[in-house]
Amino acid sequence: MANYVQPIEKLIRQFTKLPGVGSKTAQRYALRILAMNDADAQEFAQAILQAKSNVKVCSVCGNYTDTDPCHICNTRDNSIICVVQEAKDVLAIERLGEYKGVYHVLGGVLNPLKNVGREDIRLAELFKRLTGDVQEVILATDTSAEGEATATYIARFVKQYGVKVTRLAQGISIGSELQYADEVTLSRAFVNRKEV
Amino acid sequence: MANYVQPIEKLIRQFTKLPGVGSKTAQRYALRILAMNDADAQEFAQAILQAKSNVKVCSVCGNYTDTDPCHICNTRDNSIICVVQEAKDVLAIERLGEYKGVYHVLGGVLNPLKNVGREDIRLAELFKRLTGDVQEVILATDTSAEGEATATYIARFVKQYGVKVTRLAQGISIGSELQYADEVTLSRAFVNRKEV
Repeated sequence: MANYVQPIEKLIRQFTKLPGVGSKTAQRYALRILAMNDADAQEFAQAILQAKSNVKVCSVCGNYTDTDPCHICNTRDNSIICVVQEAKDVLAIERLGEYKGVYHVLGGVLNPLKNVGREDIRLAELFKRLTGDVQEVILATDTSAEGEATATYIARFVKQYGVKVTRLAQGISIGSELQYADEVTLSRAFVNRKEV
Repeated sequence: MANYVQPIEKLIRQFTKLPGVGSKTAQRYALRILAMNDADAQEFAQAILQAKSNVKVCSVCGNYTDTDPCHICNTRDNSIICVVQEAKDVLAIERLGEYKGVYHVLGGVLNPLKNVGREDIRLAELFKRLTGDVQEVILATDTSAEGEATATYIARFVKQYGVKVTRLAQGISIGSELQYADEVTLSRAFVNRKEV
């Protein structure tokens, strides 16, 4: 049965490697590439190669960087470390433009069901950093069961160093209606209620 | 405000050029590329470059090909031409493995609101092909208003050559429930009802 010609099939297969991309979507992406002019397609391919060759992982915080240590580790307040799961979480916090400390990217969370153990995420690298003049560790892992468990594990360890440990506040999202809050969120919002 | 490092930002921007990809999705794609090993990322970039340099548009039917005329134009029954909007429609029909004729890819449909006129799609190229020993033109444009209008326009022109013109049957989808058919489809299914 005839299909697309070989080079298109190959490109479609590459696109299916991206997260959440099935064969139909990959096909649309490949056809868009073919519809581009040569210069644009070359720019696209170059962007992939350059990102791979120029982007490193910061040996201190684990975030993506083009210098080592990264710009954030080099220029910001090293006494506060915000612990996140993934590099994209750093971006979300940086967008606020409010946080002045540094980060620690775990590269995942503890998950026994998926065989992710203590040595599979950057825990040892985090604990090594505590020997410096760290004053506070902010736990900003996801509020999933695994994110919570990982935060609890880290908190217990960090406290042994006499370092203050905090967790991002959890409760009802700002601007959302109470009736739509899920039960766990709502019940936690009750437990953590604050006097006004 | 600090963002991702330059090469990542650049890659994210490239991904937003793909159809339906916003900045969040582009970010996920870019991070997946960074998580790949070097060989895989290079293969990805190569696939883009090779598809662009090796894939041409068939000068006869307008489909993507690596030879000119394409494999389908060269080896199949040239007396039947199936007219479709886009290259991906060819794939959909080829998947059936039943059609033995050739294709004509219009590269769009007439759409006055979007300023797509007769000279913007491959109509002249289609009409030029009618001088051969064409016996039938099958109109397989979409059933959208524009697809219908384009089919009607082509049909009127082709009939002047004394060539048979057919349109793909329209009606209720096989396996779907009558109650969920939209009104236009249902009403057309009534009009086109067949004796059994």
